[in-house]
Amino acid sequence: MKTLLITGISGFVGGHFTRSLLNDTTEYEIHGVSRSEPAWDFLSDKETVLMSIIFHQCDLLNTGNIQTIIREVQPDYILHLASFSSVAQSWRAPVTSFLNNTNVFLNIVEAVRTQRTPARILSVGSSEEYGIVSPGDLPLSEKQSIVPENPYAVARVAEEYLARVYVKGYDLDICCTRSFNHIGPGQSDQFVVSSIARQFAEMSVHHKPRVIRIGDGTIVRDFIDIEDVIRAYKAILIKGVPGEVYNVCSGNGHSILDIVNCLAGLTGQPVTVEQDPALIRPVDNPVLIGSYGKLQEETGWAPVCSLESSLTKMYDYWLKRLS
Amino acid sequence: MKTLLITGISGFVGGHFTRSLLNDTTEYEIHGVSRSEPAWDFLSDKETVLMSIIFHQCDLLNTGNIQTIIREVQPDYILHLASFSSVAQSWRAPVTSFLNNTNVFLNIVEAVRTQRTPARILSVGSSEEYGIVSPGDLPLSEKQSIVPENPYAVARVAEEYLARVYVKGYDLDICCTRSFNHIGPGQSDQFVVSSIARQFAEMSVHHKPRVIRIGDGTIVRDFIDIEDVIRAYKAILIKGVPGEVYNVCSGNGHSILDIVNCLAGLTGQPVTVEQDPALIRPVDNPVLIGSYGKLQEETGWAPVCSLESSLTKMYDYWLKRLS
Repeated sequence: MKTLLITGISGFVGGHFTRSLLNDTTEYEIHGVSRSEPAWDFLSDKETVLMSIIFHQCDLLNTGNIQTIIREVQPDYILHLASFSSVAQSWRAPVTSFLNNTNVFLNIVEAVRTQRTPARILSVGSSEEYGIVSPGDLPLSEKQSIVPENPYAVARVAEEYLARVYVKGYDLDICCTRSFNHIGPGQSDQFVVSSIARQFAEMSVHHKPRVIRIGDGTIVRDFIDIEDVIRAYKAILIKGVPGEVYNVCSGNGHSILDIVNCLAGLTGQPVTVEQDPALIRPVDNPVLIGSYGKLQEETGWAPVCSLESSLTKMYDYWLKRLS
Repeated sequence: MKTLLITGISGFVGGHFTRSLLNDTTEYEIHGVSRSEPAWDFLSDKETVLMSIIFHQCDLLNTGNIQTIIREVQPDYILHLASFSSVAQSWRAPVTSFLNNTNVFLNIVEAVRTQRTPARILSVGSSEEYGIVSPGDLPLSEKQSIVPENPYAVARVAEEYLARVYVKGYDLDICCTRSFNHIGPGQSDQFVVSSIARQFAEMSVHHKPRVIRIGDGTIVRDFIDIEDVIRAYKAILIKGVPGEVYNVCSGNGHSILDIVNCLAGLTGQPVTVEQDPALIRPVDNPVLIGSYGKLQEETGWAPVCSLESSLTKMYDYWLKRLS
C-alpha cells in the first residue's frame, strides 16, 4: 500500500480527489493536511470519505509542523493542492496570496529535501502563469514563455521555478502542472463560473431578479471539469517525468458571457447581464486556451466532460445548498 | 531636499552608496534600514557617514515595522538593497534566502501601495536570473528570456515579476536592475572575488602557503566595480522608466582563474590553485556577460573602473583588515 499526503485536502479539489480514491483499485493510506477540517458539503457521502483519511491540522506556513508531518507520514506521493488560488483575492491581498502559494510550497519541498524523503510531489500551477498572450500562440503549449500579470500568477511562476531548482539541484522528484480554470460542484463562489451558477440558483430558489452580475464578460478561459482534473493529476503522479510541466486543460475556450448563456439555456431562465466594476481586475488576460497534447502523449490522458454537464452539476449543487 | 530610504544600508553596497552621497551636489535626507547597525569597516570616514544618516533598526520580514517606517519617513526614493545575495548560501538555506529576497521586497512595495506613498523604488535584481545561456546570446540584453537555476535566482525573478505587477496593476513607480557580480573593498568573503583577494592578503600578512582554494575556476562572470554600480543606481533612480529592467554590468567576462592570475600579477605572488569540492554548486551557469546598451542609451551611464583597479582596492582592504 502506498502512502499519499494531500495538502489542502479540505478544499474543493481535495474533497473531490479524496472521494475519487475510494473507487480506485489501488489502495492508498491517505493523509490530509489543512488549516481547517474538511467541510465538503458537495460530497453526498462525506462521512465515509472522512473516515478514509488521516487528518493533520496544520498551517503550512509553520515549518516545524510540516517537518513533523513529513517525518511521521513518510509519504510516497505528495499531492500539493494547498493554495490561495483566487486571482481576484490576490489583487486585494497580494502578500497573503504569495505566502500561501510560494512560501508554503517551498516549506514542503524543503522538508522533503532535508529529511531525504523519497516522495514524488505534484506541484499544481496555473494557466495564469502564461500572462497576456497573442492569438497566434493559442492553444498554448508548455513551451510558451511565461510572463505573470497578477500577484497570484507571480506566486505560481515562482513555485514552478523553485520546483525546477529542487529537481535539478537537489534531485527531488517533482512534476508540475499549469492547470487551467477548474469548474465543478462545491467550488467557492469567489470563482466566476461558480458565482454565475449560484446566481442562477438564487433566481430559482429565492425568485431573485433575472440579472447576472459579472466582471468583464468578454474574457475567454479554458474551463475544465474537476473530474477531468483529478484524472490528470493521477496520471501525472503515476507517469509524469520529474521536472516536467504539464498543461491540464480542456483545449476549448469559452467567454464568461458564453457561460451565462449556457446556464440560461440549461435552466430555462433568460437573464440580463450587468457589469460590476468591482469585479474588473487591474490587468487581465483576454484569452487563455491550452493544449493538452503533451499530457496526452506522455500519459494517455484526455478530458471527457462537457461544459454543459459541468454547469448542470454546479447549478444543482447551488440549488441544493440554497434550498 | 529629497528623502531617500536605503534598505540594507549596513551592507557592502549600502555603505559605499551612502558614502558617495556625501560628495553629491544634490542634498538628501538619508534614512537607512537594516537588522544591524552599520559596521562599514571599509570606509575610512565611517563616523562622518554614520552621522549623515537616520538609522532605523528593522527586520524587513516584520510587516508592521516596515509600514511604520514608510509612514514616518515618507520617502521620495527607496533604494532597496536589503538582500541575502549569496548564491552559495541560497543552496544551503533556500528558505531563508527566499524570505530575505522576495518576501522582504513584497513587504516594502505593499507598504508603499497601501499607504499610497509616491516613492520611486529601485528593485535590485541579479544576472543570475538569466540562468544557463547559449554563447550566441552573449552579451545578454534585457530581452533575453530568464530561467533561474538556483534558489537565489528564483527569488530575484519573483521579485522582478512582482515589481512589474505592482507597476502595471497598482501604478507604483518601480525600476528594476539585473545587476551582475559586484566587486569592491568591504565585500564579504562569501563572494568569490573577495575570497580570492583575502587569500592573497593572507599569504602576504600571515605568510600562508601560496595556494588559492576556489570552486569551478572556469566559470565566467561579468564583474563590475562597486563605484560603477553606485553611479548606475543613481542614474536609474533619476532617469529610469517605471516598469523597465536594466542590466548593470561591465560588458566584459572574466573567469575565476583570470581573477587569480590577475591578483598573482598585481601582488607579485605566484600561486597554485586547488579546487575545493565544497565550493562547487549543484547547478551553475558557465558564462554570464551582460550588455549595458539599454542603460547607456536611456541614462548615459557607462562603466569606467578597470578590473585591475578593483582587485587592487580589494587586496588593499584585506591587507589592512588582516594586519
